[in-house]
Amino acid sequence: MKFTNLATLLLLPALPALAQDGANQALDSDLIPPEIAARAVALRDRALTDNLSVDIVESVTTEVGPRRMGTEGDKRVIAWSQAKFEELGFDRVWTEPVELDHGWIRGEVKAEILEPFPHDIVMTALGYSIGTDGDLVGEVVEFANYDELLAVPEGDSLKGKIVFLSYSMPDYVAPTDGSGRGAYGEGTRARGKGRVEAARRGAEAFIIRSVGMSNNRIGHTGSGYSYEEDVRKIPTAALTAPDAMLIQNMLRRGKPVVLKINMTSEIIGPQMSANIIGEITGREDPDRFVVLGAHVDSWDEGTGALDDGAGIGSMMAAAAFIGQMDRRPRRSIRVILFSGEEIGFYGVNAYIEKHRDNIDAHLLGAEVDTGGGRANTLSSRVGENSLPLVREMHKLVAPLDIAFNDANNVHAQSDMSVLSKEGMPALHLRQNPNGYFMYHHTPNDTFDKIIPEDMRYLTAAYTTLFYLAAELDVDFRD
Amino acid sequence: MKFTNLATLLLLPALPALAQDGANQALDSDLIPPEIAARAVALRDRALTDNLSVDIVESVTTEVGPRRMGTEGDKRVIAWSQAKFEELGFDRVWTEPVELDHGWIRGEVKAEILEPFPHDIVMTALGYSIGTDGDLVGEVVEFANYDELLAVPEGDSLKGKIVFLSYSMPDYVAPTDGSGRGAYGEGTRARGKGRVEAARRGAEAFIIRSVGMSNNRIGHTGSGYSYEEDVRKIPTAALTAPDAMLIQNMLRRGKPVVLKINMTSEIIGPQMSANIIGEITGREDPDRFVVLGAHVDSWDEGTGALDDGAGIGSMMAAAAFIGQMDRRPRRSIRVILFSGEEIGFYGVNAYIEKHRDNIDAHLLGAEVDTGGGRANTLSSRVGENSLPLVREMHKLVAPLDIAFNDANNVHAQSDMSVLSKEGMPALHLRQNPNGYFMYHHTPNDTFDKIIPEDMRYLTAAYTTLFYLAAELDVDFRD
Repeated sequence: MKFTNLATLLLLPALPALAQDGANQALDSDLIPPEIAARAVALRDRALTDNLSVDIVESVTTEVGPRRMGTEGDKRVIAWSQAKFEELGFDRVWTEPVELDHGWIRGEVKAEILEPFPHDIVMTALGYSIGTDGDLVGEVVEFANYDELLAVPEGDSLKGKIVFLSYSMPDYVAPTDGSGRGAYGEGTRARGKGRVEAARRGAEAFIIRSVGMSNNRIGHTGSGYSYEEDVRKIPTAALTAPDAMLIQNMLRRGKPVVLKINMTSEIIGPQMSANIIGEITGREDPDRFVVLGAHVDSWDEGTGALDDGAGIGSMMAAAAFIGQMDRRPRRSIRVILFSGEEIGFYGVNAYIEKHRDNIDAHLLGAEVDTGGGRANTLSSRVGENSLPLVREMHKLVAPLDIAFNDANNVHAQSDMSVLSKEGMPALHLRQNPNGYFMYHHTPNDTFDKIIPEDMRYLTAAYTTLFYLAAELDVDFRD
Repeated sequence: MKFTNLATLLLLPALPALAQDGANQALDSDLIPPEIAARAVALRDRALTDNLSVDIVESVTTEVGPRRMGTEGDKRVIAWSQAKFEELGFDRVWTEPVELDHGWIRGEVKAEILEPFPHDIVMTALGYSIGTDGDLVGEVVEFANYDELLAVPEGDSLKGKIVFLSYSMPDYVAPTDGSGRGAYGEGTRARGKGRVEAARRGAEAFIIRSVGMSNNRIGHTGSGYSYEEDVRKIPTAALTAPDAMLIQNMLRRGKPVVLKINMTSEIIGPQMSANIIGEITGREDPDRFVVLGAHVDSWDEGTGALDDGAGIGSMMAAAAFIGQMDRRPRRSIRVILFSGEEIGFYGVNAYIEKHRDNIDAHLLGAEVDTGGGRANTLSSRVGENSLPLVREMHKLVAPLDIAFNDANNVHAQSDMSVLSKEGMPALHLRQNPNGYFMYHHTPNDTFDKIIPEDMRYLTAAYTTLFYLAAELDVDFRD
């Protein structure tokens, strides 16, 4: 903990004075006893001054780094997670095995424009692409969006071609359906299934402009195994935005653009991984619990600071702060670090398989999987009778500049959305992107992109809300 | 020209209405006849609406791309430059040979942290590094700045070590000495001679945090041949900022950090290149000329859009606009595209060698080598009697939001600063950086980083100033 304390001393400016109106209102609440509200406020304000969440991200990015499911980094992060839970004083720490049907070796990508003007270009393999088996040479056919590709008849109309999807993600617009996607979703449709749909039309390879908003000459990877067994497998990769625009500049001249691509990616056999779980055990009702989630895997070209180191850091720290109080909360708090979210929700699916008979014990859940930005809006999906309490809980985080979305229809994010759809009540804090859609899934997802003060604000909000949820004797399904 | 016109139609918003105060004042000038001032204003306003400078950058980045001196791209850009000058209607176009004493093959860099936590890391070879001849393994010794390294006694005090200079360039601060460097210069000292000074102290390799302000996980290259013949040659490379910070995070834990580096860079024999010159021939006094400069070479990991495609585009376009008037100016205008600026001013030195007896014919010069940002300040270095005229000339570009620095002590930039120091009078427009110190010398120096409207403003300023300088019958040495 020496490093934690040092970092805390070095990084913390004077604490901003929070407006106490929210806290005072809550103290008058019929639903939250004054003593509990006071404890929640003290916890919140302590979390604002403690850099633990940031230090945890620093630790996982420095000591582990990339940790794609099934790789050596995955093995290292399982050990790191257990050790970190122990170090933070969690009462119980355990792992649950998760099977991965296919492993994948990224290999290397070299690509050149041969015609009309020779250039070396930069692209990155999309997840679970096959390799090219030597050099693949083909003429580029551009599609402005995925629907244009789908409109081409199946068969051999794109025979021998390299399909190039030039869709450019516009500025991030917060989605209205709570899915956390928006404009990003249009890109990810093609990132996953484009390889199959291009092959159905005869193409030799499928390449896309990197999904995301970055103009950096580094690629954005993504996607798990998405080939279909009855469709020829073709290689697939993401061009950087500047390289996509370079090809478009050439196509605009009306000249054929010919690429040479060499990829050494390889799909391999099954691998074993694990979810890692840490518990702060409740003092009165330990077998029922609130759950805080993040995914422990990352993409393999950055160090997974934003995606999802920020989730690991904020959720571990929130539960640790609650565990450091003078008494345990009424019910337990579990932090679940899910395996294999990036490549297809392997961890949460294994978790549900194992705990299917005990979903009712999951009182309330949330996940952070949008980086370390501040929360700006609290949403929920709880029983109708519980909504007034959630509104009261919100008042204690409102001083952190968090609004409340009263629609009560938002599943939690990522892995926790799967549990939420199985009936677990959920909270969700929408966050400021803080460059998430510039950096995630790229080599740029590194610790320097974390803004410490923003992560402390995010962590303080979850700490407050989940302390209350664990302490108060309520059933959020009501 | 079809493409130029299309782009112009597509890219141009409505022309901003310029305040005409500056123009009206100049029309009252004793030094600039009203007809000439009116022509200058018309030319300026035409340049603001013509996207030619941007289209030239698009052309060189798309049709040529990287063009480091001595490479295939260098040969291509010589042909491209001649063809472009012809296409733009220059009266005379020629090349002058430039010799390069050493060529260089970049090769590839692979680097890993072996201890204390394994990571693949990203670095790029600095210019003219030797390779590692297989894997080089060594412990890292950090120096916070170059003077700290120089303070270590020569001999074997760093024997077997990898010297790591972690100097981080602060935000760009405009230099006060007209050198165009400032905080960047502190980084470039080490980028050039660090390899020699580290070797003098026994080190096996010299690595630096990338010079520049980018937090992207791509390296910043630079430097020409800078080994000294009596000092052992060691490899040298630039870590990306996130990788430099990763190593610092490990060092902060008090644990030895061991790297493995494999570089296949190679220094090769002499190469031939050329300066390319285009002339708009003066109608009355054709053997005296004003000169607009840019460097034709670029670094080899981007496409050289900012460094120095923007110089090529703005200077070619400025002279072309003047050449498209209904009559030639009094004296000639030469655009000189210098070879090998990046690796040691080869082009300008060859130019001076060839034209030493004719420097007096160079009436006034300027160079653009800071990207495509708008000009914000006009500086000069002219004879004392000419300064009042430069002040009057300034009034015609003042409506472009350009201030005037009256100190009259600023040599032109880059190559033209060398000519300026040989006695050529000079103008210099300081520009807004527009991300120059984020992108230049990296793979990110690509066409999408050009802001078209800003380049039109920049080009309009040089067009106006150099039309006047070519037209008016003055000697700027007076």
